[in-house]
This record gives sequence, structure tokens and C-alpha cells, in this order.
Amino acid sequence: MLQLYSYFRSSAAYRVRIALALKGLPYETVPVHLLAGGGQQHGAGYRATNPQGLVPALQDGEGGAVITQSLAIIEYLDEAHAGAPLLPTDALGRARVRALAQAVACDLHPLNNLRVLRYLKHDLGVSDAQKDAWYAHWVALGLSAVEEMLARSPDTGRFCHGDAPGLADCCLVPQVFNAQRFGCPLGDYPTIARIVAECEALPAFQQAAPDRQPDAA
Amino acid sequence: MLQLYSYFRSSAAYRVRIALALKGLPYETVPVHLLAGGGQQHGAGYRATNPQGLVPALQDGEGGAVITQSLAIIEYLDEAHAGAPLLPTDALGRARVRALAQAVACDLHPLNNLRVLRYLKHDLGVSDAQKDAWYAHWVALGLSAVEEMLARSPDTGRFCHGDAPGLADCCLVPQVFNAQRFGCPLGDYPTIARIVAECEALPAFQQAAPDRQPDAA
Repeated sequence: MLQLYSYFRSSAAYRVRIALALKGLPYETVPVHLLAGGGQQHGAGYRATNPQGLVPALQDGEGGAVITQSLAIIEYLDEAHAGAPLLPTDALGRARVRALAQAVACDLHPLNNLRVLRYLKHDLGVSDAQKDAWYAHWVALGLSAVEEMLARSPDTGRFCHGDAPGLADCCLVPQVFNAQRFGCPLGDYPTIARIVAECEALPAFQQAAPDRQPDAA
Repeated sequence: MLQLYSYFRSSAAYRVRIALALKGLPYETVPVHLLAGGGQQHGAGYRATNPQGLVPALQDGEGGAVITQSLAIIEYLDEAHAGAPLLPTDALGRARVRALAQAVACDLHPLNNLRVLRYLKHDLGVSDAQKDAWYAHWVALGLSAVEEMLARSPDTGRFCHGDAPGLADCCLVPQVFNAQRFGCPLGDYPTIARIVAECEALPAFQQAAPDRQPDAA
């Protein structure tokens, strides 16, 4: 049985939960509470599983191989399990989907992570207003670029790439969820909003949502 | 002819230059100066090529398809061009290499980017000492995790994965180059230092270095 080290609010874990649900793969959630006791992800126990001390990590059964990094996990699931492919088959299409996913996962999300917001507050002593402005700045920069990438391309369909959900949608939905939780307006991103609505109508995306997780507060 | 929109000091462009050289693919450099005139990457001309306003971008000939995001570009090059594979063939090995690459490209580099350091200085008004501490903090966190991922795995060889250079090495070398440029000590990362030395002995890595680029200052 696959085991997913997860935290209900982690955007990166949320991506993998969507992918697991889209592919119809059963798994067990191993909760790693990012706030309790200074953060369980920093404990020696979890660091033995993932030296980065970040969620998610995927383990293929007790004592099995551990895979870290949400995008690497999703591509692994896609390569190891046929059915409901999360990437297209042509090299250019695959590059487009990966670029959309990475525009979120490399250029937007890492800047608004829990550990970064904490550093801003505790180490740099910025005000809450400055922290919120930082958050909103990177969301606006990131989502406006993704909006343009989606709006200008004939490859965009009901979902980020064509008419089936895939890797890029797995990244976009949790990012938009986060942005909304922090009160960032989404009115300037009509293509993103339309695609996210399509995704949220699907059971796989619904099951993966933070409030549906066993460790939800 | 492949065209690479590049800036000599861009860590992400440097990754792609290494990959192009490892695969023996000829290309033309289209310089995008990230500092001149407020940054050529923000101009309408370049934004028509890449809405993210970031380098690198790869274009497959005049008017050809544009691919953005360094990791997506490298995987595209690997899929579209046989010879000198940059990822292993087994799913677990591929996941490990991608995770190492993403530990740099998603969790370390984005925090120490030019645009982020500028925001810290100009928008948050942090001191140079605070900016340097921020930089060193994320380098230490990121490289110590990568060191442990490499040191504990029997899959680590002369290079990050086995005895041939690949995607993970394409990411590691520019990150270490940057860390050294900013004066971060590397003594705690013996495996990383050993692998980087192996890489730097290869002509492909030497050709891709910042000071060898046509746009080097």
C-alpha cells in the first residue's frame, strides 16, 4: 500500500493527493503536522524518511523506496501506473505541461511557503501587512503569467492542457486554493478561474481537498 | 537551429546550457540582459516569447515552438534528442534524479533569485547584512539536505546518479557556483564538492560556465 506523508494544508501534498485520486490509486495518509510541537517535519523520525524535512513524501509500502518532491512523485506515479495519464505523449505537449506546473511549483509557491513566511516574520521582523503584501505580490506575478500562458495557447482546453486533467491542473488548483485562503483576488485570471471550476467539479479534486483529509483540524 | 534566451549569470539558463552541451546540441545564444535598462526580461518583446519574463526560454528556430522553465526544457531536450541521456530509464531512478533537481530548483534557487533579493532590499528595506543572511540561510538549508540525499544513497556515483552526468548535476553545479559567488562556505558538503569537481572537469560543464558566454560582462 502506498503511504503518503502529508499535511492537510500543504499545497505540495495536495498536488500529490489529486494525482493519486485522478489515477485511482489507494493510499494511506501518514500525517506530518507542520505546526504541532515546532513542526513534526523537523523531527529525526521524519528526516530519516525525507532529509529535506518537507512534505510530501511517498513510500511504496513499509520499508519500501521513498520518493520526495511533489512533481517527481506525480511523474513517478504516472510512469509506474497506466491509466488516466497526467502528461501528454508528445514531447512538446509534455514540455508545456511541465512548464505550467513549474511556473507554480518553482516560481510561485516556494516564495509563499510556511517556512518563508516564518523567516520574514521572525528573522526579518516584517509587519503582518508587509508579509501579506509579499504573499500577494508573488501570487499576482505568478498567476498573471500562468493566466497568459493559458489564455494565449490553443492547447488549453477544458483543463490546462486539452480536455483531461493532468500535472498542471494538480499544481494550479492547490495554488489557487491557497491564494483564496489568503484573500488574494482572482478576478484578473478568468482562464484560471474557469479551469479551476472544471477541476473542482471532479470527485478526484474534491477528495484531495484539505478539509477532506484525515488530519484536517 | 535552437535558440536559447539566456543571461550569462542566470543559474536556470546555466542548467540548460550544461544540458545542451552534454547532449552535443548546437544552439544560438539570444542574450537577455537582466540588469540593463531595468531588465530586458520585462520588455514587451521578451514577454511575447515568455510571459513569465524569466530566462531561460528555448525556441526551436525562428517562429518555432517556445519552451520555458529550465527543467521542462532539459526534459524536452532529453526526450527529443537521443544520445547522452540525462535521466535514467527506471521509474524510481528517474524520480530520484528529478527530486534532487527539484530540491535545488523548487526549494533553494527560487528564494535567492535576483527578483527576490531586490524585493527584500527595495520593498522590505532590509539591510545588506540581512539580505546576505537570507541568502546564506536558504543555501545552507538546501545544500545540507541535498548533501544528505546524496551521501546516504547507494545510487550516488561519480555524479549525482551513477557514473554519468544528468539532470541533477545540471542543477547542482550552477547552484554551487552561485553559492560560492556569494561567499557561502561549502566545507560541510563533501559529497556535493566531490561531484561538482567531477563535473567541472568535463568540457560540457566548462563550456556552459557564465564567464564563457557571449554576453559575459
